[in-house]
Amino acid sequence: MENSNLLIDFYELTMGQGYFNKKIDNNIAYFDLFFRKVPDGASFVIANGVKKCVEYLAQFHFTSEDMDYLKSLSLFSDEYLKRLSNIKFTGDVWAVEDGTVVFPNEPMITVKAPLIEAQLVETALLVYFNHNSLITTKASRIVRSAKGRSVMEFGSRRAQGESAAVDGALDAYIAGASGTACTLTGELYGVPVLGTMAHSFVQSFDTEYEAFKAYAESFPNSCTFLVDTYNTLKSGVPNAIRVNNEVLKPMGKSLAGIRIDSGDLAYLAKEARKMLDEAGLNTTKIVTSNSLDEYVITSLLEQNAPIDSFGVGENMITSKSNPVFGGVYKLVAIEKNNQILPKIKISDNVEKITNPHFKKIFRLYDKNNKLITDLICVYDEEMPSGKLTLIHPDKEWIKKDISYYRVKELRKKMLENGKIVYRFPTIKQTRQKVQDELNTLWDEALRINNPQTYIINLSTKLQKIKNDLLKNEQ
Amino acid sequence: MENSNLLIDFYELTMGQGYFNKKIDNNIAYFDLFFRKVPDGASFVIANGVKKCVEYLAQFHFTSEDMDYLKSLSLFSDEYLKRLSNIKFTGDVWAVEDGTVVFPNEPMITVKAPLIEAQLVETALLVYFNHNSLITTKASRIVRSAKGRSVMEFGSRRAQGESAAVDGALDAYIAGASGTACTLTGELYGVPVLGTMAHSFVQSFDTEYEAFKAYAESFPNSCTFLVDTYNTLKSGVPNAIRVNNEVLKPMGKSLAGIRIDSGDLAYLAKEARKMLDEAGLNTTKIVTSNSLDEYVITSLLEQNAPIDSFGVGENMITSKSNPVFGGVYKLVAIEKNNQILPKIKISDNVEKITNPHFKKIFRLYDKNNKLITDLICVYDEEMPSGKLTLIHPDKEWIKKDISYYRVKELRKKMLENGKIVYRFPTIKQTRQKVQDELNTLWDEALRINNPQTYIINLSTKLQKIKNDLLKNEQ
Repeated sequence: MENSNLLIDFYELTMGQGYFNKKIDNNIAYFDLFFRKVPDGASFVIANGVKKCVEYLAQFHFTSEDMDYLKSLSLFSDEYLKRLSNIKFTGDVWAVEDGTVVFPNEPMITVKAPLIEAQLVETALLVYFNHNSLITTKASRIVRSAKGRSVMEFGSRRAQGESAAVDGALDAYIAGASGTACTLTGELYGVPVLGTMAHSFVQSFDTEYEAFKAYAESFPNSCTFLVDTYNTLKSGVPNAIRVNNEVLKPMGKSLAGIRIDSGDLAYLAKEARKMLDEAGLNTTKIVTSNSLDEYVITSLLEQNAPIDSFGVGENMITSKSNPVFGGVYKLVAIEKNNQILPKIKISDNVEKITNPHFKKIFRLYDKNNKLITDLICVYDEEMPSGKLTLIHPDKEWIKKDISYYRVKELRKKMLENGKIVYRFPTIKQTRQKVQDELNTLWDEALRINNPQTYIINLSTKLQKIKNDLLKNEQ
Repeated sequence: MENSNLLIDFYELTMGQGYFNKKIDNNIAYFDLFFRKVPDGASFVIANGVKKCVEYLAQFHFTSEDMDYLKSLSLFSDEYLKRLSNIKFTGDVWAVEDGTVVFPNEPMITVKAPLIEAQLVETALLVYFNHNSLITTKASRIVRSAKGRSVMEFGSRRAQGESAAVDGALDAYIAGASGTACTLTGELYGVPVLGTMAHSFVQSFDTEYEAFKAYAESFPNSCTFLVDTYNTLKSGVPNAIRVNNEVLKPMGKSLAGIRIDSGDLAYLAKEARKMLDEAGLNTTKIVTSNSLDEYVITSLLEQNAPIDSFGVGENMITSKSNPVFGGVYKLVAIEKNNQILPKIKISDNVEKITNPHFKKIFRLYDKNNKLITDLICVYDEEMPSGKLTLIHPDKEWIKKDISYYRVKELRKKMLENGKIVYRFPTIKQTRQKVQDELNTLWDEALRINNPQTYIINLSTKLQKIKNDLLKNEQ
C-alpha cells in the first residue's frame, strides 16, 4: 500500500485522546514486542520483519487525507487532531537483527518513546513482525526437512493477499529456499525466479509431445517438463524422453528436469527415475509438488524417493499447520520523575503475565559456539562474566552453574530519537545469517518433531522485580 | 502495492514465450476459475474478490521498470519482450457477483482471451479471489454463529501482512461483521471503525480506577472499559461501576460496555452481568474477546453466557482452522478454425479432473425462493424451462424430476474486449447481497457442523462431452 500509516487499530487512537487529555501523552513509555509460543511446537523462531518495522517507524506520519478521515469521524477533539497532524516517531528502538534465532517471552523489539507515539505504532509493528517471522520460521523448517535438496517457493496463488504473496516469497528465500515463482518478489528484491510450465501449456497444444517440443525449442537450456497432465508414466515421462532425444540431444543439450504434481509422489518418482536412467538421463532432476510441507517431505525422503527438488506452495506461504504468529506488544515501564518504573500485566491466564521493566538480553555460547541460553536482564545490568548461576525462571530450585562461556548483547539499537542508526544487511547477508544462527543450535533443538526446548533465564535482579510486582498486585 | 502487475508466477512468462514462438499466443482460449472443496467442511462459499480481479484485468500492463526487470533476466527473446511491453487484457470475462453463494466445481470466473493474456493473469486472479472468498466465507460462519449479536473484526495484528489485514477487514464487514478495528479499512472503504482501550491504557495510569476515569472523561458517550488487566471480578468490574457512578451518571450518561479478554469467558460474563445488573447497569453491554471463532461462540451461547458482542481476531482474519482456499484456474477450451474445442485435464488424482468447455450456469429456485441446484451447461444451451430431469453428476442412476422452478443465469458479463461492462454495487449493497443469498439456502445447509451439501448438476450435453473426452484420453 502506498500509505499504510493508518494500519492502526482504532483503539490506539481513542487511547491517544485519553492520554492527550490527561497530559500524559508525552510521558516516556517502554513497550516490548514478544511472543509466548513457537508455531508448530518448534523450539525457536527465526525473527524477521524488523527492517520493515524500523522503516515504518522512521517515516511514521499522517497525511492530510488521513487527518480528513479522522476528523470526519466526529469523535476526537480539535486539539488532539492538531497533535496528530504533525506527529512523528521520535523514540529509540532496540531490536534483534532479522534472521536471529529467538525464543518465547524475550523482547524482540523494545520501543522507548512518548506514550502516544509508542501506542500508535503497535499494530503495524505486530503485522510486520508476526507475518514475516511466521513465514520465515515455517520456511526454515521445510528447507531443513529437504536435507540439502532445493526447495522452491510456489505459493503466491494461495497466499492471503498480495503482500502475503510478495513478502512471504522473500521470507522463504531468506530462510533458505532457492527461489520463488513470484515474479514481483524477483523484481522488488532480486530473489531468483523459477518455474517452467503449467498444465494449461500442455493442454494448449494438440498433444503433450508437441507441447514439450515447443517448450524445448524455446528453452533448450532449462527444460523442466510437467509430466502429469494425462498420465505420468505412460505418457508424460515417455514424451519427455522422446523430446530430449529428438530436440535437445541434437543440440548437445540434455533435459534439465521433470515435474510431478499429482499421484503418489514416492512411487511415481521411483518409476520415473528408472525410466530416465534407462534412457541415459541420469542428470535429469525430478521435481515434485502438490501440498508438500516438512512432514510430507520427511516422509518422501524416508521412503528413499529419488526427488531432487521440492516445489512448495500453500503450506509454506500460509504456514498452514499454524497460520497465526502470536506476537504481542506490551507496556513494560513508564518514566516518572526521571525514574523508570516497571509495569506488569497480570491477567486471569497465568501464561499471559508479562516480564516487566526496560530490559536487555545477553546471549551465552559455549566453547563450541553452541547457544547455552539467553539471560534477560534489567537495562542497567552489566554483561555477565566469570562464574554464573542460572536459575530456572519458573522452578527456582533448578539451578545450573556455568563458568566458561562467550557472551554478547543480543539486540542492536536501530532507532535513536526517531532516526535510523543501524545499517541493515543485504537480503543475501540476512539469508546467510539464518544459516549461521542455525549452526549455533543443538541438533536436538533443530528436530522437526518434539525438539528439545531452550530454557531462557531472567537475571536475579529482574526475577526479584517481577516477584515483587506480582505480590503487590495480588 | 502501487504496481502489482508482476504478481505473476514466473512460469506464466516462460509459457508465454513458448506460445509466442509457436505463434499460438493469439489463439482464443477459455479458462475457468473454480474450487474443489469448501473450507471447514461447509457446504458453500461466499464468492468475493471478483471486483478486484476485474479491475486488475482492466488495467493490466507492464511498466517500463517491469520490462527492464524481465529483460535483465536474459531469458526471453527480444521479439517476445516487445510483445509483452505493450500487452493489455483484451478479452471477455463472465463472473459471479461478489457476495454470491457458490459451490465446488462450478466456474466462478470464465476468461475468454488470447491465450497469452489469459495465461499471464492467472496468478493475480487466484490471489484476489482465493483470499477474499476465504475470509468472507469464514467471517460469515462466525457472524452466523453469533445469532444476531454483533461481531467485531479485531484481527489486523495477526493478519498475514498488510493487504491481508486491510482487505480481510473489508471481507468481514461484507460478511456481516458490524465493523473493524482496522482504521485503514475505515479510511479506504468507509467500513465502521471500532475499539476503545488496551491493557497498556490501564497500565499507563497509577491505578485502574484512574485509567477508567480518564477514559470516561474523554469519551462519556462510548465507554467500553477493558476489565481484565488485574482481576476482572475483584477489580475491573467494580472500578467500571464506580466510574460509571462517579463520572458518567452525574453527566446523565451510562456505561456503554465492559470487555473481558481472558479467563473463563462464560463464567466471567455471568458474574459480571450480575454485578452490573445489581448496580442498575442493565443496558451496559458485555463484550468478549480472546481467540474466538464460530465453535467457541457456539459453545458460549449454549452455556447461556450473557454476551452481547464478540471481538474476533486471529481465527477470522487468517481463517485459522482452514487458512487455504484452493481455487484453481484451468484451461477448458481453445478456439481453432472458428470452433470452440473443449479441453480436459485428467490427472492421477480423480478429484482433479476438470469440467471441460466454455460453460454457463443456471441457478434454479423453488417457489419459496430456496435454491434447488445449479445446472452447469455448455455455453450455447438455452435456459431450461418446463419439466427437467436432474442427473447426479457422479452417480448417474440418481435422478430427480422437477417441474416448478424459477431460473436465472448465475454469472454476469463483466469485461468485453478488455473494457468493464458491469456496474459494481457499493460495499453496502454487496453486504446486503450476502444476507439475501443466505436467505435462499436451507437451514440444513447453513449449519456450522456437518451441513447438508447441495448437488450441482451438469447438463446432459455437458456430461456427454466430458465422458467422451475422458474415454478418448484413456
